[in-house]
Amino acid sequence: MSRNWVKIKISDYARLSVNPLRKITQEQKVEPNPLKRSITLQLGDPTIFGNFPPPISLINALNNAVHRDKFPYNLSYGKYESRKAVAEYSKHQGLVTADDVILASGCSHAMEMCVLTLTASGENVLIPKPCYNYKTWLDGVKIETRAYNLNPEQSWNIDLKDMESLIDEKTRCIIVNNPGNPCGNVFSKDHIIDLLALAEKHKLPIVADEIYEHFVFPGIEYHSISSLSKTVPILTCSGLSKRFLVPGIRMGWIIIHDRNDSLSEVKQGLRNVSARILGPNSTVQYALPEILQNTQQQFFVNKMMKIACNAELAYGLLNQIPGLKPIKPRGSMYMMIKIELEKFPEFKSCMEFTQQLIREQSVLVFPSYPCFNYPGFMRIVLTVTNDMIEEACARIKEFCETHVVN
Amino acid sequence: MSRNWVKIKISDYARLSVNPLRKITQEQKVEPNPLKRSITLQLGDPTIFGNFPPPISLINALNNAVHRDKFPYNLSYGKYESRKAVAEYSKHQGLVTADDVILASGCSHAMEMCVLTLTASGENVLIPKPCYNYKTWLDGVKIETRAYNLNPEQSWNIDLKDMESLIDEKTRCIIVNNPGNPCGNVFSKDHIIDLLALAEKHKLPIVADEIYEHFVFPGIEYHSISSLSKTVPILTCSGLSKRFLVPGIRMGWIIIHDRNDSLSEVKQGLRNVSARILGPNSTVQYALPEILQNTQQQFFVNKMMKIACNAELAYGLLNQIPGLKPIKPRGSMYMMIKIELEKFPEFKSCMEFTQQLIREQSVLVFPSYPCFNYPGFMRIVLTVTNDMIEEACARIKEFCETHVVN
Repeated sequence: MSRNWVKIKISDYARLSVNPLRKITQEQKVEPNPLKRSITLQLGDPTIFGNFPPPISLINALNNAVHRDKFPYNLSYGKYESRKAVAEYSKHQGLVTADDVILASGCSHAMEMCVLTLTASGENVLIPKPCYNYKTWLDGVKIETRAYNLNPEQSWNIDLKDMESLIDEKTRCIIVNNPGNPCGNVFSKDHIIDLLALAEKHKLPIVADEIYEHFVFPGIEYHSISSLSKTVPILTCSGLSKRFLVPGIRMGWIIIHDRNDSLSEVKQGLRNVSARILGPNSTVQYALPEILQNTQQQFFVNKMMKIACNAELAYGLLNQIPGLKPIKPRGSMYMMIKIELEKFPEFKSCMEFTQQLIREQSVLVFPSYPCFNYPGFMRIVLTVTNDMIEEACARIKEFCETHVVN
Repeated sequence: MSRNWVKIKISDYARLSVNPLRKITQEQKVEPNPLKRSITLQLGDPTIFGNFPPPISLINALNNAVHRDKFPYNLSYGKYESRKAVAEYSKHQGLVTADDVILASGCSHAMEMCVLTLTASGENVLIPKPCYNYKTWLDGVKIETRAYNLNPEQSWNIDLKDMESLIDEKTRCIIVNNPGNPCGNVFSKDHIIDLLALAEKHKLPIVADEIYEHFVFPGIEYHSISSLSKTVPILTCSGLSKRFLVPGIRMGWIIIHDRNDSLSEVKQGLRNVSARILGPNSTVQYALPEILQNTQQQFFVNKMMKIACNAELAYGLLNQIPGLKPIKPRGSMYMMIKIELEKFPEFKSCMEFTQQLIREQSVLVFPSYPCFNYPGFMRIVLTVTNDMIEEACARIKEFCETHVVN
């Protein structure tokens, strides 16, 4: 042979498709304290502790589907009956039909399809800061992300001036996440109307990540972004994962809100893109109408009461801890906690703080940087048991009291 | 408002992610003859007619999984137990462990992950001609495809001289499909060894699309490409879809055959890419070990005998038709049929021929161009009932006798 094999190089696409949350959990390098049982408040997975089971309607529907589905290829953007059921389920967003729905392999896949259809390499997309890992889909394909601030002092509302300052002729869409991860923001009607006016002014479509739709605490009103506009083109993404407490099911969808025929090419583009991997699992598609139609309202109500109760508990306990400042969420299933790093001189960053918290107290949380592209906070999930919330907060208190400098 | 909304443009990614097979079936514009019941020999979907049901082991495994799986997030590249089962199931390919397996949402997704990890925009990939729609994943990201010929006169063997002539310094991998779609090729051991020598000489990794692994007719030997090399880095893609007759299940995988540590970055790259959409459906992952371990060999044997029998029948009938020249497949579930277009002067292309066949005889087949990037043939699927094969061939005969010019 003329030469030996050398390491095969990978594309930027593969090198830069980094999901910081998965990187931390899948390649966890910090060892917890062996004397303390680990409490994991990291991934937004409500299935871990058995206290948030999925609705029985979902098990029944899947059970039926396993015996009746023939496991065929469906249309790559989804079986008609399933898309019809999604359109019906989503009527709070505005009038849509099966024709306006694209099924996807989870909401992440739905979101990826939207942004890669609207935007090309060299162009840019506006994303929130802090935010879920939208950059995972974009960095590797050389789409620039420009991060607009959410303001923790104002219930994580969008800083619309900041957003507007980022727009230029290469901006193709605005990603909005409401109710939000990691912040637990739930925007008011007025705030959404202001956002829509900005999108209208600059003629920018919105990609609305509403995987936490209806996921708001008692007393808080939820408005789907598309329900408040008759003109702005909006692609709304959602799915079963969060609201039905089944993140592993990988059933998501896109709803195309096209009131002025500006999205006809986009619809065809999304259908094209769906043919790259040929749609989500047929059995879940088969079960989808039954799941969406048969799940009792009470299931959702109970779930939100439990999460809101955990949020209250965690907020109350963390708010008393020196050096921490929790920000009260209004929905979703997370809480962001500001770490007043100037009071913890041992730690240069929220990453160092949270790593030491694992080593000493075996409490696993996500540092807001790099996880949410935002420094100085940590995020906890609220779908654990309230015993675990109590225990975790007690350990975080001990940790802070050990390290705080007043 | 300063201006009105105009049509929103889409990216080249969305414009060029065209799956020609899906385009034809999903946007079918030609009307069949209303006096004749349609016979669909287009998509490779064995579930349509009820004559190729999935193994009972698969239904049982899914049934168990629906009741036991908690629908959690798994590792984005797959649950350990499922990857372990895939490694065990794939030992005919060479020794691998769970660590060498990446699960994907179908074999198409697995293939897309491989080529986008190995290749960047501006570089090139070798693909067969005729071939499955590999271009769907590549055209939109500006990866050049260079098509090497398969030779119908030699059981669709690769023209290795042609392949070598296409390689330059921008070539990143060779895609090989064996057993193959649309040709039904099954390469001999010697032919694979010659291919491997070429890959070795040019130090090019192979992406082996082996979704039709073991899918060969009685008397034909099947060799996995990776089983015949100790040095060439190979990514082998497969899945449940075809062998278990469940195309809608969307469970595929990549096996990383890395004998010289040249694929360590690639493995990390594939894991990164898997985090873009967070892995396949958890229930199917949960069921996977049971499916792979409990399916009786007899199921596969019976299936292949039925398909081989259909192949014989179709070959025998079509071979008598003036102007057609079927090429005998050795495996997979398709047959390519050469259309001697010079004998059908009414039709300028295989597309025109097959469209008129729909209009007159309601027999739906795929024209080899654009479907398989190869002119002058049509492809039929062999997983229909033998009554349908007989009827379809009789109608094709009538069609050809009407239009042929001797």
